[in-house]
Amino acid sequence: MKTIYTYEAKRQELIRRLRKIEGQVKGIARMIEEGQYCLDILIQVAATRAALHKVGMMVLEGHVHGCVTRAVSEGAGDEVIDELMKVIEKYTKG
Amino acid sequence: MKTIYTYEAKRQELIRRLRKIEGQVKGIARMIEEGQYCLDILIQVAATRAALHKVGMMVLEGHVHGCVTRAVSEGAGDEVIDELMKVIEKYTKG
Amino acid sequence: MKTIYTYEAKRQELIRRLRKIEGQVKGIARMIEEGQYCLDILIQVAATRAALHKVGMMVLEGHVHGCVTRAVSEGAGDEVIDELMKVIEKYTKG
Amino acid sequence: MKTIYTYEAKRQELIRRLRKIEGQVKGIARMIEEGQYCLDILIQVAATRAALHKVGMMVLEGHVHGCVTRAVSEGAGDEVIDELMKVIEKYTKG
Repeated sequence: MKTIYTYEAKRQELIRRLRKIEGQVKGIARMIEEGQYCLDILIQVAATRAALHKVGMMVLEGHVHGCVTRAVSEGAGDEVIDELMKVIEKYTKG
Repeated sequence: MKTIYTYEAKRQELIRRLRKIEGQVKGIARMIEEGQYCLDILIQVAATRAALHKVGMMVLEGHVHGCVTRAVSEGAGDEVIDELMKVIEKYTKG
Repeated sequence: MKTIYTYEAKRQELIRRLRKIEGQVKGIARMIEEGQYCLDILIQVAATRAALHKVGMMVLEGHVHGCVTRAVSEGAGDEVIDELMKVIEKYTKG
Repeated sequence: MKTIYTYEAKRQELIRRLRKIEGQVKGIARMIEEGQYCLDILIQVAATRAALHKVGMMVLEGHVHGCVTRAVSEGAGDEVIDELMKVIEKYTKG
């Protein structure tokens, strides 16, 4: 399973989004250093979490289209789906 | 209101946490570049979102202890609380 | 603290919303009994959770405007705010 | 697709959980009528949302094991997966 990277089609877009998120995290640190208003900072934290959520959903979509589809076709779907559900439950808790 | 920074007591800890989060975001980009397994990436995304959530909660706590307490003492609590609730609703949606 | 009910102004609206949510929960049970399509059920679960979230936010707003404002005015704000933050952290995990 | 109910194996458990959730919603209404403490109510709202989330995850699991597996086997996986991802994105917003 380890060598299947089904988010490959979106790899460039994912990297680009993560670079932007890195910038957002740096921006939050700068706001705190400059002593900006708490609620403005909180709004930036929420925006950054939403951007990370979008990345997570893109990776998940790639996984289901790629790994899950392949595993089901090869008759090993149940195991992969159990693993998927555990990650989704964990993910939706965060 | 703009010059009150009530998360100051935790400023160093917040900056430290944000530096770590920046590293986590870089790590996710690296995992994608290396073509690592989708669900391992998703677990890292969830961990990074949880770390950002902790930062958000620390900033919120500073805000309520600082700005809200001050505003209530000065008789201007309702306005500040309405603003706070809007941000919490927005935040809990993300 | 136990006898302060600061969501009183919204009591009728809250009860009305909760009656509607009760109906939504019954509706989900019926959908399952009738064997309706999984994703349609999931959409109803999401809508019901969102409706409950709205109730939670209304109760929280009443609490901050009422109990927290009162406690701050009486000089006992910090304790009430610590308690509030613990509940918000718990709440935003769910 | 409409006649496939893949959560059937768990139907009794789902109904039982939903009956309990119905009771929790009634309990929240009663707490509000009795004027109980706001944060105690909020904790009950959080518990009820978490219980609904568990129901949602069980339905989702049934869907992925059942409908998605079947659709992939029949070569119609992509469409079903696109639909699934839309619901998961919607669901994780609530």
